[in-house]
Amino acid sequence: MKVLDNLFAPRSVCLVGASHSEDKLGGVVLKNLLGKRDLKIYPVNPVYDSLMGVPALREISALPGADLAIIIRPAPEVSGILKELKGKTRFAIIVSAGFSEAGHDDLQQEVKKTAASAGIQILGPNCMGIYNTGSGLDTFILPSDRVPRPKRGNIGFTTQSGAVLSLIFEYFHASGTGISAAAHYGNAAGLDECDFYSYFAGDKNTKAVISYLESIRDGRRFLESAGKLAAEGKPLLVLKAGKGHAGQSAAFSHTGRLAGSYGVFSSVLRQFGITEAMDLEELADGARGLSVSKANPLKAAGRKILVLTNGGGAGVLAADEFARRGIELPPLPAESERLLREKLPDFYGFGNPFDLTAQVRDEDYGIVLDELHPHYDGFLIIALSAVRGVTEGLAGILAAFSLHTVKPVVLHIGTDPVAGTIAAGAEAAGIPVFSTPERAAKVLGVLLG
Amino acid sequence: MKVLDNLFAPRSVCLVGASHSEDKLGGVVLKNLLGKRDLKIYPVNPVYDSLMGVPALREISALPGADLAIIIRPAPEVSGILKELKGKTRFAIIVSAGFSEAGHDDLQQEVKKTAASAGIQILGPNCMGIYNTGSGLDTFILPSDRVPRPKRGNIGFTTQSGAVLSLIFEYFHASGTGISAAAHYGNAAGLDECDFYSYFAGDKNTKAVISYLESIRDGRRFLESAGKLAAEGKPLLVLKAGKGHAGQSAAFSHTGRLAGSYGVFSSVLRQFGITEAMDLEELADGARGLSVSKANPLKAAGRKILVLTNGGGAGVLAADEFARRGIELPPLPAESERLLREKLPDFYGFGNPFDLTAQVRDEDYGIVLDELHPHYDGFLIIALSAVRGVTEGLAGILAAFSLHTVKPVVLHIGTDPVAGTIAAGAEAAGIPVFSTPERAAKVLGVLLG
Repeated sequence: MKVLDNLFAPRSVCLVGASHSEDKLGGVVLKNLLGKRDLKIYPVNPVYDSLMGVPALREISALPGADLAIIIRPAPEVSGILKELKGKTRFAIIVSAGFSEAGHDDLQQEVKKTAASAGIQILGPNCMGIYNTGSGLDTFILPSDRVPRPKRGNIGFTTQSGAVLSLIFEYFHASGTGISAAAHYGNAAGLDECDFYSYFAGDKNTKAVISYLESIRDGRRFLESAGKLAAEGKPLLVLKAGKGHAGQSAAFSHTGRLAGSYGVFSSVLRQFGITEAMDLEELADGARGLSVSKANPLKAAGRKILVLTNGGGAGVLAADEFARRGIELPPLPAESERLLREKLPDFYGFGNPFDLTAQVRDEDYGIVLDELHPHYDGFLIIALSAVRGVTEGLAGILAAFSLHTVKPVVLHIGTDPVAGTIAAGAEAAGIPVFSTPERAAKVLGVLLG
Repeated sequence: MKVLDNLFAPRSVCLVGASHSEDKLGGVVLKNLLGKRDLKIYPVNPVYDSLMGVPALREISALPGADLAIIIRPAPEVSGILKELKGKTRFAIIVSAGFSEAGHDDLQQEVKKTAASAGIQILGPNCMGIYNTGSGLDTFILPSDRVPRPKRGNIGFTTQSGAVLSLIFEYFHASGTGISAAAHYGNAAGLDECDFYSYFAGDKNTKAVISYLESIRDGRRFLESAGKLAAEGKPLLVLKAGKGHAGQSAAFSHTGRLAGSYGVFSSVLRQFGITEAMDLEELADGARGLSVSKANPLKAAGRKILVLTNGGGAGVLAADEFARRGIELPPLPAESERLLREKLPDFYGFGNPFDLTAQVRDEDYGIVLDELHPHYDGFLIIALSAVRGVTEGLAGILAAFSLHTVKPVVLHIGTDPVAGTIAAGAEAAGIPVFSTPERAAKVLGVLLG
C-alpha cells in the first residue's frame, strides 16, 4: 500500500461539517462522496440523525476511525477538530477558507502545528481536495452541474488554484480528455505538488502529469519529485503563473541552489526534462496531446520537425509558431526530394513546410510521410478539408502512419463533417487534433520536450 | 458610385468556365452566384444551352456586357479570355491557379499586361474573390457545406491565403461573428489589400477591418491605405505571417522608407494606429472583440487596465498575459481603495487584479466597476460561475456598466448554463466573452490599440 492511497482511494471517510442541503458546501461534498459506491461515509452533524440517507454522528468522538477526514467548518474551529481526530485518521482535507489567503497566517500556523502533533497529514486549507476517476472519490465543493467532471483517463493533474481547476475540468469535459486523478491543494500548509508527483509516479493509471503552480516552496524538493516522474517515464507539463510580477519571481530563492528569476526557472525545468506551458490553453492542449499521443517527450531523439500542409497560409503560421520557440524546420534531404519529385506533381512545394496545395489527393500525405519519416523527429500535418481531394479516406492513411511510428504526429484540421470524420479517426490512432495551426504546433513542441 | 462597387455589388456577372456540375469548380461558383437574387448571370459554356436553369452563352463574344467577369479556365487561356472581355467588363476575378505560385511568373506577367491594355482591373489569379453579405455576392469555389459562410455583420476581412479564409470563416460561423465582406486576392497581380482598405473605408456596413498578410508590395501605399481607414475611425487588425523566415523579412525593403526587419514592421504599424495580432486565434478573437465591443482602439485614451476577478489563479494568468505585452496593471487610487474597503468584505483582495474571491456576490462587480471606472482605460472581468454568489443576475449588472461607458470591457467566463446566460447578456450589451483569461486579455489589448 502506497503512502497516499488513503487520501486518493479511502475505504472510509469522515465528513466534519456535513449538511443535508445541497445549498451548503457540506451538502454538496456529501452528495459527491455518495458517488463512490463502496465508500463508508461518516457524516458529522450535531442536529440530524441521518443526512441524505446516511446515518450521521453527533460528534467526532463517536467516530470509530476513517481512512480520511474532510473538514468544512469555520477556520477558528479547525485546529480543535484536528485534535479530536487524533488517532482516528491519518489524512485530513481542510476545505475551510479564512487562513493565510485572508491574512490569518496565525490560524494556519496553528493548524499546521496541531496536525503535526496529531499525526495527521493535511491537504489545504482553502482547497477542494481530490477527484479520482480510478477509485471514484470526489471531495469537491463544486456541484457537477456547475463544473463537469472529466472522464476516466491517463492524465494526473495538480493545481494550486481552484479557478484553474474548474477551467481545466470544463476544457477536459468538452474535449473528451480523460484524467486519472486531480488534486487541488490551495494554501498548501501540508501536502503539495511534490507529494502528488511522487504519488502519480507510482500510479499505474497515470501516463503523464500536468501541474498549475503559483509558487514553489522548495526548489530542490520540487525537482527531486519531478525526477521521480521522469524515472518512471512520465512527462510533466507545468504552467508557472505569476511570471510578470516582481513579487512572484523569488519562487526558488530560499533553496540557495536556484536563482529567482523566471528565465532561470525555465532553463532549469528543461534540464530536468520538465516541459513548460506558456498559458492555460497550452497547458490544456498539451494535456490532451500527452493523453492521446503514443509519443513520449522524455524519449524524443531531437526536435527536427516536418510540416506537411495543403494550404500555404496555414503552413506559414505553423512555421511562425515554431520560429517563436526557436525550433527550425530543416529542409528535405536531397535524395528524398529527388524521389518525391518523381512521384508527385511538379507544382507541389517541396520545402518545409511541404505544400501539397489545393490539388492534393489523400494518398499524397502517405507518400510524403513514408519517405520522410526517418529524417524528422515530429510531424505536423495540416489538412484543409475544404478542397475536393481531402476525403474521409485520409483518416486511414494517417492512422496507418501513426501506428508504425513512436514519433509524435499532430493534426490541424477544420470543423466541417469530412474534417470531423478524419479527426475522429486520427485521434483514435494516437494523433491529437487542434483547431488552429499554431495550437497544433505548440502541442508538437510539448510532445518533443 | 464608388470605385469597387462593380466588384463587391455587381448587378451582372459573366462566368467564364461555368459548369452544370457541382463536382467542378465552375459549377460550385455558379451555384454560389445563384444565391444573389437580383444578379443577372451570364454563364459561358461551349456545350450547354443552359446551366442550373440559367441560359448560357456559347462564347464571350455573345456577352452584351457585365459589371464583373469571373474566369475559371486553365492558366494559359486566361490572357486570351481577357482580350475577348475588352470593352465588356471593368473587373475580372481570376480564380485559375498555375501562375507565379506554381513557378509560371511569365504567364502572370502576360495576364497583367493584357488586363492593363484591356482596361480591366483584375483580382487574383489563384484566388476566390469576394463574399459580400450586404449585396449577397458569393464568388467562392468552396461549397458552403465544406466552408460555412459567416452571417451579416460589421467586420471587413482581406486575406492573401485561401487556407486562412476558410479557417476564419469556420471560426466566425461557430462564434456568430458577422462580416460585411471578405476579399481573397491570392497572387495579387492586380487588386490587393490596399484597394480593399480604401473600399472598406467608404463602406457603411464596415466598422473594423482584419487582414491576413504574407507580403506587402509597397509599404508606403500600405500605410496610406490603412490611414484611410483610420481617418474614418475604423481600426485595422493585421496578422503578418512569415515572421520567422529570413525570406519574408524584406516585405518593406523596396520602399526605401521602411526597413525590412519584423521588429521595425511592428513599430511602424503601431505609429499608424494599426494593431497587430500574433497568431490566427488572436486575429479571429480580436475580430470578434472589435465586432461586439462599442469601444474603438483609435479613440483609446491610454492603456491602464483593471482586472476584476473572483478567482485568484485566473486573475494571475490574465496579469501574466498583460505583462508579456508590456501592459501594467496600476494599483487602485488610495481614495478608491478606502471607499471600497468600507463597502466590501475585508478578505477581498483590494489590488489589481482585484479579487472578489469565491465569496463574491453579483452586486460586488458593480460596486467595484462604478468606483474605479474613471481611473482605468479598460476592464477585464473574470466571473467563475462555479461559485454560488455568481448568478444570472450578473448579466444585468455588467450590461448596465457597459451601456454607460465607451471604454472597452471584456469578459472571461466558463461554459456551464449559468455562465452561458451571463455570456449571452454580456455580448448583447457590447462585452465580448472569451473562454480563457489570456484570450480575454489579448482582446482587451487589441481594443486598446
